[in-house]
Amino acid sequence: MRISELVERTGVPLATVKYYLREGLLPPGRAVGAKLSLYGEEHVRRLALIRALRDTANLPLAGVRTVVAVIDEPSPDPVASLGRAVAALPPAVADDRRGPYPRAEAVAREIGEHIDPGSAAMAQLEDALAAAESVGLGISPERARCYARHVHAMAEFDAAHVPAGESGRAIEHVVLGTALYEPVIAAMRRLAHQDVARSRGAGGVRADAEG
Amino acid sequence: MRISELVERTGVPLATVKYYLREGLLPPGRAVGAKLSLYGEEHVRRLALIRALRDTANLPLAGVRTVVAVIDEPSPDPVASLGRAVAALPPAVADDRRGPYPRAEAVAREIGEHIDPGSAAMAQLEDALAAAESVGLGISPERARCYARHVHAMAEFDAAHVPAGESGRAIEHVVLGTALYEPVIAAMRRLAHQDVARSRGAGGVRADAEG
Repeated sequence: MRISELVERTGVPLATVKYYLREGLLPPGRAVGAKLSLYGEEHVRRLALIRALRDTANLPLAGVRTVVAVIDEPSPDPVASLGRAVAALPPAVADDRRGPYPRAEAVAREIGEHIDPGSAAMAQLEDALAAAESVGLGISPERARCYARHVHAMAEFDAAHVPAGESGRAIEHVVLGTALYEPVIAAMRRLAHQDVARSRGAGGVRADAEG
Repeated sequence: MRISELVERTGVPLATVKYYLREGLLPPGRAVGAKLSLYGEEHVRRLALIRALRDTANLPLAGVRTVVAVIDEPSPDPVASLGRAVAALPPAVADDRRGPYPRAEAVAREIGEHIDPGSAAMAQLEDALAAAESVGLGISPERARCYARHVHAMAEFDAAHVPAGESGRAIEHVVLGTALYEPVIAAMRRLAHQDVARSRGAGGVRADAEG
């Protein structure tokens, strides 16, 4: 398709498409003349990916660049590639940030033995735990065990449903699944709180079930 | 304590404390003279709450006002109070937003029977599901069932650990627990992905376990 069709199909403005081409976020089209390049489904999908990362996951352009680079040139170690891509997702962690992450380490032990102690997610967990602690909501070992068991079960489901085959495609899936299912899970948890509160009573006070 | 001590204890600047007093977010101190008021631990805790909602949960001041109003004047129905307070948390939902939320309804059915179909969390779930769908990651019934089971189990743990007693205190706990444990759970899920990938191989490709 011509660039005008690509704009129409995706709703991404022409100037933005040209900008992504210049920046290498979108691979060049197939040149079929001095002034004409044609684009394909891979360009449609890439634009949807960039938009999801920008608008839904609130990723700055530098983060999009990292994710795209990992997808286009995955390293021989797919787990390392995934780690690099997921580390680009918010919340941002300073590049020079180093541990130790004492709160996160205690919780990570409940999750599993194969966790990189220097990964961005460890810094994110440390910050989230410190914020909770600052208002008297430090996480108890019992809560850590409970949450760890359930996030691990969800992660096993996720891993079992990554599309097989080409590695760049798998990375794209995992990065988007990480970013886009987080708000899904957060909203589902709020609804589960409603369900539990309505059926059991909230805050120790028994409430009438609705309906 | 004097207001200067309150500033020192909490690290909240004097001008901000005075602003919160004027706005009614912070209850007035106990007047002990024409020009002197004394503050207590409840003021320290309220400032920590406001800071957590503002800085960690990224709540706009209007949202903080809603949460504080619900805590200070809980309605006779604690579940309704909780719903109002949690609805003020991000992501924002327009006041005039009404359903139907077809994607969210399908998922909510997996969570439980006691969910308010018009609640803010339903709108949030609908938006999150639509965003995932837009990049080909629509949630399958199997994934919905899996996530629903695990968020429900976490919500049951949460409900069992709400402090008993005074209702405002319970609401404070639930609102903060909702806002502050969401990033904890998100980071834990990323670590669980690492653990599963390292121990099973990522994207169908078996990787060497580290260490």
